[in-house]
Amino acid sequence: MSTVRLWTDAEAEKDSRVKAVFDDIRATRKTGFVNNVWRALANHPDTLERIWAGVKDVMVKPGELDPLVKEMIYIAVSISNGCGYCVHSHTAAAKAKGMTPGQHAELLAVVAMAAQTNSLLQGLQLPVDQPFLVES
Amino acid sequence: MSTVRLWTDAEAEKDSRVKAVFDDIRATRKTGFVNNVWRALANHPDTLERIWAGVKDVMVKPGELDPLVKEMIYIAVSISNGCGYCVHSHTAAAKAKGMTPGQHAELLAVVAMAAQTNSLLQGLQLPVDQPFLVES
Amino acid sequence: MSTVRLWTDAEAEKDSRVKAVFDDIRATRKTGFVNNVWRALANHPDTLERIWAGVKDVMVKPGELDPLVKEMIYIAVSISNGCGYCVHSHTAAAKAKGMTPGQHAELLAVVAMAAQTNSLLQGLQLPVDQPFLVES
Amino acid sequence: MSTVRLWTDAEAEKDSRVKAVFDDIRATRKTGFVNNVWRALANHPDTLERIWAGVKDVMVKPGELDPLVKEMIYIAVSISNGCGYCVHSHTAAAKAKGMTPGQHAELLAVVAMAAQTNSLLQGLQLPVDQPFLVES
Amino acid sequence: MSTVRLWTDAEAEKDSRVKAVFDDIRATRKTGFVNNVWRALANHPDTLERIWAGVKDVMVKPGELDPLVKEMIYIAVSISNGCGYCVHSHTAAAKAKGMTPGQHAELLAVVAMAAQTNSLLQGLQLPVDQPFLVES
Amino acid sequence: MSTVRLWTDAEAEKDSRVKAVFDDIRATRKTGFVNNVWRALANHPDTLERIWAGVKDVMVKPGELDPLVKEMIYIAVSISNGCGYCVHSHTAAAKAKGMTPGQHAELLAVVAMAAQTNSLLQGLQLPVDQPFLVES
Repeated sequence: MSTVRLWTDAEAEKDSRVKAVFDDIRATRKTGFVNNVWRALANHPDTLERIWAGVKDVMVKPGELDPLVKEMIYIAVSISNGCGYCVHSHTAAAKAKGMTPGQHAELLAVVAMAAQTNSLLQGLQLPVDQPFLVES
Repeated sequence: MSTVRLWTDAEAEKDSRVKAVFDDIRATRKTGFVNNVWRALANHPDTLERIWAGVKDVMVKPGELDPLVKEMIYIAVSISNGCGYCVHSHTAAAKAKGMTPGQHAELLAVVAMAAQTNSLLQGLQLPVDQPFLVES
Repeated sequence: MSTVRLWTDAEAEKDSRVKAVFDDIRATRKTGFVNNVWRALANHPDTLERIWAGVKDVMVKPGELDPLVKEMIYIAVSISNGCGYCVHSHTAAAKAKGMTPGQHAELLAVVAMAAQTNSLLQGLQLPVDQPFLVES
Repeated sequence: MSTVRLWTDAEAEKDSRVKAVFDDIRATRKTGFVNNVWRALANHPDTLERIWAGVKDVMVKPGELDPLVKEMIYIAVSISNGCGYCVHSHTAAAKAKGMTPGQHAELLAVVAMAAQTNSLLQGLQLPVDQPFLVES
Repeated sequence: MSTVRLWTDAEAEKDSRVKAVFDDIRATRKTGFVNNVWRALANHPDTLERIWAGVKDVMVKPGELDPLVKEMIYIAVSISNGCGYCVHSHTAAAKAKGMTPGQHAELLAVVAMAAQTNSLLQGLQLPVDQPFLVES
Repeated sequence: MSTVRLWTDAEAEKDSRVKAVFDDIRATRKTGFVNNVWRALANHPDTLERIWAGVKDVMVKPGELDPLVKEMIYIAVSISNGCGYCVHSHTAAAKAKGMTPGQHAELLAVVAMAAQTNSLLQGLQLPVDQPFLVES
């Protein structure tokens, strides 16, 4: 049970702001499926609109990073923040964008290695080496 | 001041295990520079050897992910874990591998957006949608 | 299944230290309900007594912050630490203290926005602006 | 030294998108001071505009939560995420909005108590009590 | 449902690298039981071999720390990182190594107290006292 | 610069509640040194008294765990939470209690290995094995 109510499609149809976002999610992703996070955010249209617009801007709008790379970065962050829902949803999204089992395995290996050395560094409390501080 | 002593090059020269790792770091990276984390790990050769071998295996050995992509994933995790030293060292490494200012900016935007939605999901405590749970 | 056994009311009745805390929880909260965390801590009366006394001191004793504000801060921390049980229990407590759906939605929006900018700052590694460092 | 260059006011004046955001920050906050995070985000106007618009929407637009309460929630999250810059900047902002030393002390006490019990719960791995799962 | 497929014993028998690791896990732990994490890592033998070798090196090889102490440290980290699977598996391992209910309770109390004061310190942003910075 | 003012010894002498805690810290630790965290908490005697009493109860009162083991667990948590001040102060405390360089190195290796496997598990989202769920 979540901390807020999830909106059904029937309810979404009756609220113009929610309907507009749900329609755009479906059109942008070329699928009829609207996952639970949007059904939860529908309770607060301001947040629904802002978060969806932000996700579109950051994840969908063409830029210098490949969409699959962005999705793998999203997974890396979701793992590090311990968000199970997010790991599941973005791993599914990355697979849909072509992530191979080998890429997935390497992604997890890099994330875990980074967690290991991050932890070592927190324990060592080292000064940053001068060459890393040169302005680019 | 760190929680352990940092080894100088002169000291590393006198310990065969430490010298072997430092030499391999220099050869692998094609630079004379050995940064502080290795000088700190030198106090415990078992850890020094294991961590360096792991980093080589995960980050240097050719695989299915591009080296720059791995470096950006490493930055994403370091940011999420709040490790300042790691953010500095891996951002420098990514720039050395060709990360453009635009890629860097997009990387930060994705990491921060993921942190935002991770946080929303932790607050909402949603069940994972069925389609995300289908075995690949 | 939790990592320790949960005490039943019948068991709690037979241990004077546990009974005293359970009785005080019921009297303080004006409810017969004692939730699982206290039933788990009952295995170690020192911890049970210390944590309950601390929670009373911080959350129940009148001070300069409104009880509902404290509860919302508690939710914010629980979200950031990724504690599902805590998010559920403190969201329920906040609703019981009058948190409206609108306040709940704004709370989640603030928490998530903070997570986003926290993340940006970890990636940017900025020096703190001088005006923020003036002693109050 | 940060991982990106900080824009000076002179540079900001010459870029219409950056200038527009800096001007709006000054007008909204009624101060000439633009802190480092915006000078860093200026390197990527898309992010600068999106983050500032989001912060205005969430933190400045009137809603059901008091501005000071929002600021204290922001501090709570920044503490939990270990972001030093953010703790400094939002503590300064909260003081500017009238947070008293007593409120500040109580805020820290609540945040720390929540961290303590969050941690206990992660160690206990308890099932969520049924009454906390009733849909609101 | 996990994000990768779990290998059965029958499948592991047919892959020489996976079989070798599973056999070594059973021999090292003197049990026929191979838990899920190894069945998941079997999808990527490089990672399976590296992680198992690392765990053996760090957790099994005799050193200066008692095996039970190491296991309790592992629990402490798993709690702090919010990894439910890890808390369960390492709490079970510690109990198997003789951790008493009293030691378990004290472990949780220390971990939670540390989380509380860590949080206070993040809120206070104190300079490290000079005596703590003296090189050992 | 911290977010609150640090009390000098002269000021502490003039406040009976603060003086009592400072005196007890000195007597308990058999040193004249009172570190910054207590000087910061002095601004709110309720918190100062509660936190000091809690630390004494958890860390000083004899129990089933060795004081050095408790101190190492405290370091493990402080590393995982990324608290630099706490890593410094508790590493100094552990060294004062006899932690050897070898024990320190093994502690860091265990903490970092746990962070690595915690991260793998967050990425894999595995069900907890049945044998780990048996009630103790």
